Amino acid sequence: MVDGIDREKIEAIVASRQAGHTLPQPFYLDRNIYSAEIEQLWRESWLFVAHDCEIPAVGDYLTWEIGDDSILLLRDDAGEIRAFHNLCRHRGTRLCSEPQGHVGRIVCPYHQWTYDRSGQLCSARGMDGELNFEEWSLLPVAVATAAGMIYISLAKNPPSFECVRRQITEAAAPQGLNRAKVACAMDYEIEANWKLVWENNRECYHCNVNHPQYIRANFDHYNDDDTTTAIETRIAKQLERDTNQLAAAGLAATHHATGMASFPDPDHAEGWCAINRTVLVEDYVSETMDGQQVAPLMGDYDDPHVGTLRMRTMPNMWNHSSCDHAVTTRLLPAGPAKTRARVVWLVDCDAVEGQDYTLDRLLPFWQLTSEQDWDLCRRAQQGISSRAYRPGPLSTYKEWNVEAFIRWYLKQLVAPTDL
Amino acid sequence: MVDGIDREKIEAIVASRQAGHTLPQPFYLDRNIYSAEIEQLWRESWLFVAHDCEIPAVGDYLTWEIGDDSILLLRDDAGEIRAFHNLCRHRGTRLCSEPQGHVGRIVCPYHQWTYDRSGQLCSARGMDGELNFEEWSLLPVAVATAAGMIYISLAKNPPSFECVRRQITEAAAPQGLNRAKVACAMDYEIEANWKLVWENNRECYHCNVNHPQYIRANFDHYNDDDTTTAIETRIAKQLERDTNQLAAAGLAATHHATGMASFPDPDHAEGWCAINRTVLVEDYVSETMDGQQVAPLMGDYDDPHVGTLRMRTMPNMWNHSSCDHAVTTRLLPAGPAKTRARVVWLVDCDAVEGQDYTLDRLLPFWQLTSEQDWDLCRRAQQGISSRAYRPGPLSTYKEWNVEAFIRWYLKQLVAPTDL
Amino acid sequence: MVDGIDREKIEAIVASRQAGHTLPQPFYLDRNIYSAEIEQLWRESWLFVAHDCEIPAVGDYLTWEIGDDSILLLRDDAGEIRAFHNLCRHRGTRLCSEPQGHVGRIVCPYHQWTYDRSGQLCSARGMDGELNFEEWSLLPVAVATAAGMIYISLAKNPPSFECVRRQITEAAAPQGLNRAKVACAMDYEIEANWKLVWENNRECYHCNVNHPQYIRANFDHYNDDDTTTAIETRIAKQLERDTNQLAAAGLAATHHATGMASFPDPDHAEGWCAINRTVLVEDYVSETMDGQQVAPLMGDYDDPHVGTLRMRTMPNMWNHSSCDHAVTTRLLPAGPAKTRARVVWLVDCDAVEGQDYTLDRLLPFWQLTSEQDWDLCRRAQQGISSRAYRPGPLSTYKEWNVEAFIRWYLKQLVAPTDL
Repeated sequence: MVDGIDREKIEAIVASRQAGHTLPQPFYLDRNIYSAEIEQLWRESWLFVAHDCEIPAVGDYLTWEIGDDSILLLRDDAGEIRAFHNLCRHRGTRLCSEPQGHVGRIVCPYHQWTYDRSGQLCSARGMDGELNFEEWSLLPVAVATAAGMIYISLAKNPPSFECVRRQITEAAAPQGLNRAKVACAMDYEIEANWKLVWENNRECYHCNVNHPQYIRANFDHYNDDDTTTAIETRIAKQLERDTNQLAAAGLAATHHATGMASFPDPDHAEGWCAINRTVLVEDYVSETMDGQQVAPLMGDYDDPHVGTLRMRTMPNMWNHSSCDHAVTTRLLPAGPAKTRARVVWLVDCDAVEGQDYTLDRLLPFWQLTSEQDWDLCRRAQQGISSRAYRPGPLSTYKEWNVEAFIRWYLKQLVAPTDL
Repeated sequence: MVDGIDREKIEAIVASRQAGHTLPQPFYLDRNIYSAEIEQLWRESWLFVAHDCEIPAVGDYLTWEIGDDSILLLRDDAGEIRAFHNLCRHRGTRLCSEPQGHVGRIVCPYHQWTYDRSGQLCSARGMDGELNFEEWSLLPVAVATAAGMIYISLAKNPPSFECVRRQITEAAAPQGLNRAKVACAMDYEIEANWKLVWENNRECYHCNVNHPQYIRANFDHYNDDDTTTAIETRIAKQLERDTNQLAAAGLAATHHATGMASFPDPDHAEGWCAINRTVLVEDYVSETMDGQQVAPLMGDYDDPHVGTLRMRTMPNMWNHSSCDHAVTTRLLPAGPAKTRARVVWLVDCDAVEGQDYTLDRLLPFWQLTSEQDWDLCRRAQQGISSRAYRPGPLSTYKEWNVEAFIRWYLKQLVAPTDL
Repeated sequence: MVDGIDREKIEAIVASRQAGHTLPQPFYLDRNIYSAEIEQLWRESWLFVAHDCEIPAVGDYLTWEIGDDSILLLRDDAGEIRAFHNLCRHRGTRLCSEPQGHVGRIVCPYHQWTYDRSGQLCSARGMDGELNFEEWSLLPVAVATAAGMIYISLAKNPPSFECVRRQITEAAAPQGLNRAKVACAMDYEIEANWKLVWENNRECYHCNVNHPQYIRANFDHYNDDDTTTAIETRIAKQLERDTNQLAAAGLAATHHATGMASFPDPDHAEGWCAINRTVLVEDYVSETMDGQQVAPLMGDYDDPHVGTLRMRTMPNMWNHSSCDHAVTTRLLPAGPAKTRARVVWLVDCDAVEGQDYTLDRLLPFWQLTSEQDWDLCRRAQQGISSRAYRPGPLSTYKEWNVEAFIRWYLKQLVAPTDL
């Protein structure tokens, strides 16, 4: 069910936004704007769903609830990933009700209509003479993969995935995400609008006080206004070692400064994806509490000094990968003031828990960082919900990516999406 | 409070329905259609409330919440059933707050205005000179009974009840529902639109896999396309015994074939009621797990071989009665995606629990069947809620009653109800 | 977010109200009317928040959620009470999240913007050159106090507080509310429209059966129609003693009859406040279960025979004060069918629990009376929500204050508030 969308109202609110400032209140509360976002932005984009190592064998499936829709992601007989709407063509019944499982054929629990793994109807007991089976296949959903990352799109005409596929495939290949396994997954309900989650993600102005573990490992919480010569020297030294050791393998850092890499880029259609590799501080080889390696090396790595690979795709995924583990966060809006997030920790597929890694060393860095952020987002939503809220000024030194995000977002909202 | 109803929108959606297919999505989700259903169908119909054996003595009452309204059902001094709106005429206070109880007079808890059992105001302490008591009686609700089954109607001009009274009285009299008692009642919240509950009820296509206990007892899960000669022979044999023994007592089976009896009949105003008697399989005398009698014979029966009496009244009741017990299901919509159901098991009023019957033998057959159905309805609602849902084809052999239900329903929705 | 308000609809509903009768249904259920009440009545009035003894020291604060807004009430460096919107001017983040606490400076948890106790921005790490600090102070909320009672107003132009300040200051000074402490506070969610809570409060017609402890202590449940000569004699005797002893101290009873004092007064702008002193029955010196003193004398009192001081301010406060304790009730609407109430018991600030008073003797009188009332309000809301509800007649002897309340309320709703 699509709520009615009043485009004129939205355009008036968009026009009221003052550059360099946070968004006006309706962007965080209004049902009309939320509906427009779902229709024009979320349902028109490529959305990250899962890593393909989560359904490794033929017949493995997982389901994903997105609004009222349920998507069935399945590895077919040829080993390819397929996506279907998770409902029977007979009377609309939800087919697979578990979050994850394995099927030979897909059998509807109601009247046992049966589909093969390519979605073809192959049996409808008692209706043989009445149906042209060809017409009643499962409804397909567009699916695309890159380096073991699965995306779906609910759009009638999904945007091109090629540019992103190329970028991800090239940069992420050595990380071996398709030869990984899920060590742990945590689901969160963040009491905040999904844009507040991105605004939080797009600056490290808040890191100093709120993320003690994060700032011990990274340089990007420094910005142009507080990067001293001493810090520049430290980074240069890390880059030098890095470059010497890794350039040959294509693993050299691509982000050489303090501050965060610029993203998203509202002025280019392919600007919904960004990938870069960053150095860590001295003596840190992984984003862990003490910087030490906590699991076997992943993918093609044969040396732990690979910094961190960082990937982001709008509107719903970011990933931080160290030499020994990768952490992927997937977002989904669940109303103007609620966002669901899943955080997944990946390690090499052969690593054995308790032997090669333990969760108490693997999880804390990103569990703490994530939960600290969710709490800040919640408090931002609380304050912004007040009648007294009015937009505030963004720091040019520290929040330029928040401004970039807002510009990217407004462009999606006003123009028909053209990723 | 009546939500605004947009009739033009409804007519457009009705027009979009394709015969022989399930209903379009809005019928299961849309608030506008739901409001129209409440106004034109539910509030204009006769609704089954309870069996009169639930309030056997003068002054016994029960209350029934229907939307925001509360109905007070009371046995008055003459032993007749009366129904009132359960609120005080003074400041509107809810009078009786228990689901069931006994009153001498009805005293408002707020300022003690007092009504007798016929609803007349008989005391209003402190306001004697100020009121004409005649004008401030409890507000009556239309009530009708047949064979111990109580119906109310919220309509200004309730439809005629005569035809239904005659049918029920004649067919149900031998069952002795008015000489029964409640052995158990279970309340359910079904996460599905009320029409999905009826669509489920109106076909046995789903029985084979989902209701193992039901198909062991009955023939009606067979249909024209899968009724073998062997099955026909079995039915004929059951009918023969049945006819010989029961014709004299007016208890002969009225439904002689496989498949379900046709119901509802959208083309006749009195088509909101259907009653028939069906044979059970060999060696079964009751709808129980093993087919054996589990309680004393009810009503006028002196032999357990009476098959099952089945009664249904649209929009909210069905009953399956065996020789030894009766099971009544009462529905009430609670939003587009929720239906409340109460399932009540009746046995003879003199039967003593633990001695003449035990719940562990009495309940499982219909408790299992009901809960299996609620789960299927829930999964249908889930799938139909998907943006991807589109109507699917109904089997002509197995789902003709679903089509009949849909036709009946659409007629109620479009035309002013004329039951 | 302000819901749209349809004034024409409201005026039509107001016009449909019949004098001397309860309000039509929409006043208790309708979102449109509720929104109008919030905008025109609640957000335009002075609202009682707390006693200033609840934040006794410089830097003590409390927060109050009112709708989506959060108000920060703070004692500043000069010892004055200040009120602010509890959100940061940078990105709107909620500042103080505890109901009560102490701050040196107010530091936003997100990016550590820092405000002094007068609300001035004094630090914004990393944005020094970019901001004119003067422009980014906390947003102030109008605040007023009288005899230790703190009020705020969300109005752009709050109504005059002077008349009420004078009345409260004069009458409440001897009670010593500003030299008190909170012995206990209880929070309630009443399942009823806020007006039903006032309608309940404005008559004692319901007291006889529902408040056994209250009627043992007071005379005001008698009315013109049931006040006997014997009762008049008892009151006269109490008044005589009272007058002789207390006139000199300005503590003489101001309410000399049975029945409640008239309030509110719809015909005078200052009619939103009423204060009076009433005698208790013989041998009662406090509103307690047995009428005995249960805590040390408060304020300037040196004799327990001071009757009860009663204060009310529309739309959200009433207080009953005896010689030894005071009980304040604060209301806040939380939707058409829900009201939040806080009941606070105050005793002298030097009284020590367990030594000078115990909660089991202090609380029951008003805890019982309050909870009995909330339950009656809930039942009224239930009944009024029925489609069958229609306004009922108010007793001229016993419910004249309910009529006065309704008239006051309608005047606020129709005319721009002009308190």
